[in-house]
Amino acid sequence: MSAAKRLSRPVAPGSTIGILGGGQLGRMLALAAARLGLKAHVYCDEDDAPAFDVCHAHTFARYDDERSLAHFAGACEAITFEFENVPAQAASFVAERAPLNPGAGALALTQDRLAEKNFLVSLGLQTPAFTAVSSPEEARAAFGAIGAPAVLKTRRFGYDGKGQAKIASADGVMAAWTVFEDAPSILEAFVDFEFEASIIAARGQDGDFVAYDPPQNVHENHVLRRSRVPSPLSAAQVAQAKTIARRVADGLDYAGVLTVELFVTKDGALLVNEIAPRVHNSGHWTIDACLVSQFEQHIRAIAGWPLGSPERHADAVMENIIGEEAADWHKLAESCGALHLYGKKVRRTGRKMGHITRLGPKTAAR
Amino acid sequence: MSAAKRLSRPVAPGSTIGILGGGQLGRMLALAAARLGLKAHVYCDEDDAPAFDVCHAHTFARYDDERSLAHFAGACEAITFEFENVPAQAASFVAERAPLNPGAGALALTQDRLAEKNFLVSLGLQTPAFTAVSSPEEARAAFGAIGAPAVLKTRRFGYDGKGQAKIASADGVMAAWTVFEDAPSILEAFVDFEFEASIIAARGQDGDFVAYDPPQNVHENHVLRRSRVPSPLSAAQVAQAKTIARRVADGLDYAGVLTVELFVTKDGALLVNEIAPRVHNSGHWTIDACLVSQFEQHIRAIAGWPLGSPERHADAVMENIIGEEAADWHKLAESCGALHLYGKKVRRTGRKMGHITRLGPKTAAR
Repeated sequence: MSAAKRLSRPVAPGSTIGILGGGQLGRMLALAAARLGLKAHVYCDEDDAPAFDVCHAHTFARYDDERSLAHFAGACEAITFEFENVPAQAASFVAERAPLNPGAGALALTQDRLAEKNFLVSLGLQTPAFTAVSSPEEARAAFGAIGAPAVLKTRRFGYDGKGQAKIASADGVMAAWTVFEDAPSILEAFVDFEFEASIIAARGQDGDFVAYDPPQNVHENHVLRRSRVPSPLSAAQVAQAKTIARRVADGLDYAGVLTVELFVTKDGALLVNEIAPRVHNSGHWTIDACLVSQFEQHIRAIAGWPLGSPERHADAVMENIIGEEAADWHKLAESCGALHLYGKKVRRTGRKMGHITRLGPKTAAR
Repeated sequence: MSAAKRLSRPVAPGSTIGILGGGQLGRMLALAAARLGLKAHVYCDEDDAPAFDVCHAHTFARYDDERSLAHFAGACEAITFEFENVPAQAASFVAERAPLNPGAGALALTQDRLAEKNFLVSLGLQTPAFTAVSSPEEARAAFGAIGAPAVLKTRRFGYDGKGQAKIASADGVMAAWTVFEDAPSILEAFVDFEFEASIIAARGQDGDFVAYDPPQNVHENHVLRRSRVPSPLSAAQVAQAKTIARRVADGLDYAGVLTVELFVTKDGALLVNEIAPRVHNSGHWTIDACLVSQFEQHIRAIAGWPLGSPERHADAVMENIIGEEAADWHKLAESCGALHLYGKKVRRTGRKMGHITRLGPKTAAR
């Protein structure tokens, strides 16, 4: 297998950026690329992908279609992805043909909760207690060690609460194990957090690093409901969150935007919940409250451009528009906020259809 | 000829907006439509049109190709245009097939400087003194009446200083007449203005009206160099500018964004220079300094959506990136501003390649 391609110089305006994945994150990445005079080529295995509507070119094909992947890679000067579950094989395949960032290493790591947790521990970062489990016996033993409440999480392919089950008893852990069909998992101590936060940061190909103010995040039914900046984090905690993100980014020799989800405990500790090697729903407020959004920042980083300022010029509350809520688009358009709709046809329960960001005069973090 | 189509209800997210013209204004309109979950179909007679890179569908065809126009109109639920020189015939043709806004009347009026000036006078608005000229004799006589300095302007197809000549003498007016190849024109008194300003406003299909704070505009070589808000206009002058825009919009029974260019004289009068029936270069700062940009406002108006707030949350200076200046994109990307590049391949002298907006804390108008 040949070595992955490296970017030899910044990708000039007029060139094409490839995006694996065509959901709303891919759509907003394509819009950000356009703003910088770059063309976007979106690759997705769904034919009505939201990002297809806003790009120079698109490929509708499966992620194991090497002919389509080769054509796509050949048409792009730099490639990225919008979701961490892009098949590792597809990522390696395009990485041999065009510079892929974040790299296949960061992708592989964040596709496996166990590898990710071990990496975080190796960096000296705090996480909830966890144990790998690969059999019913191990699951039962792990529950005995960690105690109730705990959370069983499959190692792979989890998002928005999928592949997760809260466990209150030994019987519960066995039931979840069966539901997850014996998938290799981790059992994690349930954290009775004060609140959740996230830190969205970018690392350039030259190692340059910037981080946005960390928002407080509120979830409902395992889906993000709203993000707010500033969060209740103290200045010291904000600094600590940025240090965590930097350590993760440096540890991965990362290029692009990454997100670290945090539990803030009642005694003020920051525990790393998980890493997303991508732009993040909790960073959508940056579109309207910052000169350079997380999406533009990511495009800058993967295209070898200088990073932009992550400074915000306003306080912001970003609220997701979920499922049937999008039917009220006319009313949302009347309200005093920046409305973003993703162009999705079908309003399924729990599906992210758009978001609205309300701004206020800027106040400092607590 | 059948009557023009009217919009019977707001255009729902997921529907398609048609845009005649594929330059940077069409591009930014398409990006704004995408943000609202609307698809854009761009029609342009140039095959490398900047707007083609960011739309759901595009048609590359001449404006007299009725088969292509019919197909385009059939695919769109509402149609608009990005430039006032779209052929009137093409506009009427699509207007019979899908709701076109601004309407063919506004388009016809602003395509003819004489009709436009007469309309402004009929509204009781102040303009520079002007006289219609349609022969060398009339040109000479008009110069005699208006005096030096004056400006000869062709009635049709002028923009960025094209079709305009400053006149200092009777010989000069004859020379310009020859250069303009006997084109029907107007001779206008040259206004020794204190500064130039513009007012960008939107009128909804229900007659609702909003206006942005008017920027001060500085031109170099007849091309806009920069726009700044707040301008030096007093609060009373700002109110007067908004009243002028409202009178024009109401007078045209207009739907969409329109721009009124103003000369501010040394004694504080506001003279209307011209009307642009569209989004305007001097309003690009609204993308970064307002929750709802002029582009989104226009899409809202032509799609029958409620208008958004025109309030700005910051002071702003927008600077155009012209011709070879775009070669410095890497340096511009390092500077602390919101960078916008239009994806144009060729950097011609005077060609608008992008713009950069710098924000500061909001101060009130003077």
